[in-house]
Amino acid sequence: MTAPTGCPVAHEPVDVRAEAEAFLRLFHGEHPKTGPVEPRLEQVLAEIDETGTYRHTEGELAFGARVAWRNSARCIGRLYWQSLRVRDMRKVSDAATVAAQCAEHLRSAGNGGRIRPTVTIFAPETPTRPAPRIWNEQLIRYAGYWDAETGAVIGDPRYQEFTEEVTRLGWQPPAQRTRFDVLPLVVETAEDGVTLHELPRAVVHEVELGHPEHNWFAGLGLRWHAVPAISNMRLSIGGVSYPAAPFNGWYMGTEIGARNLADHDRYDLIPEVAERLGLDTSSEQTLWRDQALVELNRAVLHSFARAEVTITDHHTESARFLTHLRKEEDAGRKCPADWSWIVPPMSGALTPVFHRYYDTEQVGPEFVLDEDARL
Amino acid sequence: MTAPTGCPVAHEPVDVRAEAEAFLRLFHGEHPKTGPVEPRLEQVLAEIDETGTYRHTEGELAFGARVAWRNSARCIGRLYWQSLRVRDMRKVSDAATVAAQCAEHLRSAGNGGRIRPTVTIFAPETPTRPAPRIWNEQLIRYAGYWDAETGAVIGDPRYQEFTEEVTRLGWQPPAQRTRFDVLPLVVETAEDGVTLHELPRAVVHEVELGHPEHNWFAGLGLRWHAVPAISNMRLSIGGVSYPAAPFNGWYMGTEIGARNLADHDRYDLIPEVAERLGLDTSSEQTLWRDQALVELNRAVLHSFARAEVTITDHHTESARFLTHLRKEEDAGRKCPADWSWIVPPMSGALTPVFHRYYDTEQVGPEFVLDEDARL
Ligand code: HEM
Ligand code: HEM
Repeated sequence: MTAPTGCPVAHEPVDVRAEAEAFLRLFHGEHPKTGPVEPRLEQVLAEIDETGTYRHTEGELAFGARVAWRNSARCIGRLYWQSLRVRDMRKVSDAATVAAQCAEHLRSAGNGGRIRPTVTIFAPETPTRPAPRIWNEQLIRYAGYWDAETGAVIGDPRYQEFTEEVTRLGWQPPAQRTRFDVLPLVVETAEDGVTLHELPRAVVHEVELGHPEHNWFAGLGLRWHAVPAISNMRLSIGGVSYPAAPFNGWYMGTEIGARNLADHDRYDLIPEVAERLGLDTSSEQTLWRDQALVELNRAVLHSFARAEVTITDHHTESARFLTHLRKEEDAGRKCPADWSWIVPPMSGALTPVFHRYYDTEQVGPEFVLDEDARL
Repeated sequence: MTAPTGCPVAHEPVDVRAEAEAFLRLFHGEHPKTGPVEPRLEQVLAEIDETGTYRHTEGELAFGARVAWRNSARCIGRLYWQSLRVRDMRKVSDAATVAAQCAEHLRSAGNGGRIRPTVTIFAPETPTRPAPRIWNEQLIRYAGYWDAETGAVIGDPRYQEFTEEVTRLGWQPPAQRTRFDVLPLVVETAEDGVTLHELPRAVVHEVELGHPEHNWFAGLGLRWHAVPAISNMRLSIGGVSYPAAPFNGWYMGTEIGARNLADHDRYDLIPEVAERLGLDTSSEQTLWRDQALVELNRAVLHSFARAEVTITDHHTESARFLTHLRKEEDAGRKCPADWSWIVPPMSGALTPVFHRYYDTEQVGPEFVLDEDARL
């Protein structure tokens, strides 16, 4: 996660009628084949008057999810927004099926390594019925255990609190704790309350990390999961809220190599990698941190490629994003983008996305990180 | 230069009386020994009523310049703002002396390599008399020559237009053009119009670049000047404008190694360095750009250190900046900072400045880049 720029983003209270109308006009505007918007709009407004909400057609749902991706100002990977797979699970609201469908999401999106950008949309929030929620930040993340003996965290420090919480809720960590123990899913529903669900091992595809030149690297015992699937953002489409709507793309290598494994408050591996590389760490001026960072990231990209798991590097992805901007401009649309998130966390100025301005005005449909969401 | 974040910065038309009062209150507030502000304020307001402007005392001038540095939201190097050397050249408004004093600035600030942060303040703008202006973006920058034969630019492409302009004004490039020909100063005054001034070689301290391990690097024939002195920003203090007020600090290595020498539209040296390093440039996934970038930056830091010219690396400077933020907070002040400029252009997330938010509200005194300034 990147620190935003300080520009405040205003969220007005939801006006369902107005949002529904704006969304339906957008949908019909971009899909002339669906005919004029008026009949559908009338129907929807009547439904809102009666029930306080409305049901999206499958076409509207898929379009809404895809445009929510297109509108994700922090996402550099938007070129392929139109190809998002949309799994309509709006009928699902019980915890066991939510968890099972999250597992199925991982399996079908992971696709044996040929990762497919996918969103699974569970039951929406309605005036009469709260929606299911997933507490996890991502479907797959690793536990962080506070080790009283060493005073350090084993695993991912980002999830130390979350790990403690699921442990209080009854989770049993593996007898042999490792740095890469997959956390259980935590699903909350009105009916079942808060429930824990272990992910089947078969859907947790992981990549063991080695380095293209340094054989010792494999001995570090590092690994990472193949599918990044954010599960705590609310999908907001035309006045309807889908709080459980996990989505995934494929990884850009820097997310793993320059953040998850490198951040001082995450796996913090730069000093260890530098030492194994034999770098001179006696002074910052040798740029040993920067050298270790590059090698760590080379290892990530190399290992995913070797394991035939889709991954992208920040140079390729920056170029793709510029193509996306051009295509959006050609389509007569503004493309909201947040510079501090779009610019990769390493070698920023080497990428063309560094050297330009962006529109910043946020528009819907969108993925929203709620203040009250858990970790 | 970095692309800003898109937050608009509003500049109101100058209200000299209000700005003078705010500034004098700030000065007396931070310097209790100067006594109560009222007598001085009365005097200044009377002077403004009579002449439309007023004269700063030497103490006010030095304080104003230092606080303008302290308020530079884009500057990571502000920890030492109190030690800024202030050269009071307000009496100087003729072109020849402006140029001579710019040269003297470079000599005394360069200080044989032990660089001293310095500002030289020339005559202010008054209602009756326009101030001198310096057209150059920095006192020392290298010419960029369009080579019709190769279709490429020799030197710094950023200054190609400026080079053409000074050539039209009568500048004679050296008979043997190189990639590192120092541009003449262009000074504009009401009396003399636009005049050209060659900098004496003795004040142009340069560092030849070599690499701590790769001997071939020196053979690339690269060099850079020791003193970065911005000369096209207006110093605005309490309602008084000093359009010619060149200032310098020392370099942070990335300015040279990750921007000036690396940017695609500057010296664009990454491909050449990568080739000489023997890197596999057949795919972006090898991160050859990132590797070459690190080596280029190691060369810069190594060479300045070897030449005993002050320079700083982005890790050290980020840590210093956090110290500065703490000190400002302890003093009860907000510190305006622009994330996209503060975060270094390489290895962003490795530096602690990446992982936080900043106040962004701009306050005066300040250095201002005027819209109408030249290159
Ligand atoms: C297809 C490959 C994709 C790539 C390479 C990609 C890349 C990225 C990257 C690098 C980030 C910044 C992450 C961080 O710094 O923490 C990001 C953020 C984001 N992406 Fe994508 N993405 C992809 C697919 C998707 C999909 C399919 C969606 C939604 C349907 C999406 C929506 C988002 C959102 C909402 C964020 C912001 C997350 C936050 O605020 O924490 N992305 N993406
Ligand atoms: C002492 C060592 C100093 C260091 C290491 C330092 C570092 C930096 C860096 C890295 C930048 C960004 C440059 C870019 O990306 O183009 C910057 C910008 C800036 N610095 Fe400093 N600085 C120093 C001294 C000073 C001094 C003495 C002043 C003024 C008295 C100053 C005022 C500024 C201003 C106004 C900017 C923004 C320039 C613009 O908008 O183009 N700095 N500084």
